[in-house]
Amino acid sequence: MTYCVALKLQEGLVFLSDTRTNAGIDDVSRYRKMFTYEDTGNRAITLMTAGNLSVTQGVITRLDAAIRQSEAGDETVETVLNVPSIFRIAQIVGALMKEVLSIHRDAMEKDGAASGASIVVGGQIAGEAPRLFLVYSAGNFIECGEDSPYYQIGETKYGKPILTRTLTYATPLADGLRACLVSMDSTVRSNLSVGPPFDLSIIHTDALSFATWRRIEEDDETYAALSAQWSRALAESLHNLPNLDRLLR
Amino acid sequence: MTYCVALKLQEGLVFLSDTRTNAGIDDVSRYRKMFTYEDTGNRAITLMTAGNLSVTQGVITRLDAAIRQSEAGDETVETVLNVPSIFRIAQIVGALMKEVLSIHRDAMEKDGAASGASIVVGGQIAGEAPRLFLVYSAGNFIECGEDSPYYQIGETKYGKPILTRTLTYATPLADGLRACLVSMDSTVRSNLSVGPPFDLSIIHTDALSFATWRRIEEDDETYAALSAQWSRALAESLHNLPNLDRLLR
Repeated sequence: MTYCVALKLQEGLVFLSDTRTNAGIDDVSRYRKMFTYEDTGNRAITLMTAGNLSVTQGVITRLDAAIRQSEAGDETVETVLNVPSIFRIAQIVGALMKEVLSIHRDAMEKDGAASGASIVVGGQIAGEAPRLFLVYSAGNFIECGEDSPYYQIGETKYGKPILTRTLTYATPLADGLRACLVSMDSTVRSNLSVGPPFDLSIIHTDALSFATWRRIEEDDETYAALSAQWSRALAESLHNLPNLDRLLR
Repeated sequence: MTYCVALKLQEGLVFLSDTRTNAGIDDVSRYRKMFTYEDTGNRAITLMTAGNLSVTQGVITRLDAAIRQSEAGDETVETVLNVPSIFRIAQIVGALMKEVLSIHRDAMEKDGAASGASIVVGGQIAGEAPRLFLVYSAGNFIECGEDSPYYQIGETKYGKPILTRTLTYATPLADGLRACLVSMDSTVRSNLSVGPPFDLSIIHTDALSFATWRRIEEDDETYAALSAQWSRALAESLHNLPNLDRLLR
């Protein structure tokens, strides 16, 4: 399984993904699900993937091959690093998802394998505002608005309530990051197939570069402190909720 | 869909269920999923149901028919009100689940209907400690221990993190009730097919009667205050989490 969460807030974009994949509970591996592309001063872009790993790797491999082709002098090829909008990247990712699935879907389904996948595409390119898209297996996609300023893919349910209750488009980025980490921690504690380390990337609005892109290891002090403090805060908050005597009569 | 949660704490048992059922999102109804049986001073028992409504109603109808038969003078019939243990009730519920499914399962599956169901059985009978069981469609069942002092059935994921993080067997019953209400509220806010009003029953250890058995309406003041205060508490707790500057370097 997988859990990835992306926020589009006024102050910027936050991306957080786990690194665990499994084919059955006895075949667990670690794979990167976050892919970042940067041309400082011009663009910073993050992709996060969930679902069938062969499908999402097929998409990322093709995106990277296009970049190498472009760097080798081919001026006709469109890449994550040269198209004029995040929208265009979402279109390309959608088309690649269809292409990969058209090769393998029938055979995968005959094998009883789930071929579904989804990819979050977000970032900012000079000349436009930060944008965040969710691309489906069919190649279609949706764009994140300000009313629900986040996307989740993979094992989404455990980590949703904290996002629903605390996030608005105006939420400060630091609180948004805390909400992502709590959301991830709630998921990890509930589903063994989601696990550390985590990959984190942050793009401040109009910075056109990454504020951070790093891996958070399982024993990271800050993460461990946050998880422990969150458990204490929940227990205290619960204890301070209104008196329920009225319900007991 | 459905969400029911039951706690087995040192101080007693808490049961909370929603009342929404749906066959597709355009066919939503209200049905009771909590059923209580009391013989004050001798026993107090709650059943909660999830899954295919025709199956769970079939089980409850047969349990109630047995009670009427017993009340009419048949001393041979076993009922929720005369057996010596909650374990025996779980066995009877499991057998009835198998009986109902043996009549309808094949035809339901041909129709593409999900025939799965599960029933929580809990309470206390004079002479034994409070007990809590989870009965599956196959008639088999498990008993709740002290390490994970709760069961959830139906749409369980949204409401699980708050239970995992805050509950132990020693948690005071009042805090346990708060956790159940927050868990329900988190689910209701995330899945439209779970909804108010809610049914609540509480059995204190060794009371052998219900402390409360009541319906909580959508506009209940205490519930609304709890929900609003919980949202505020989460936002504050989040804001007070450790400084994350280290993660941003």
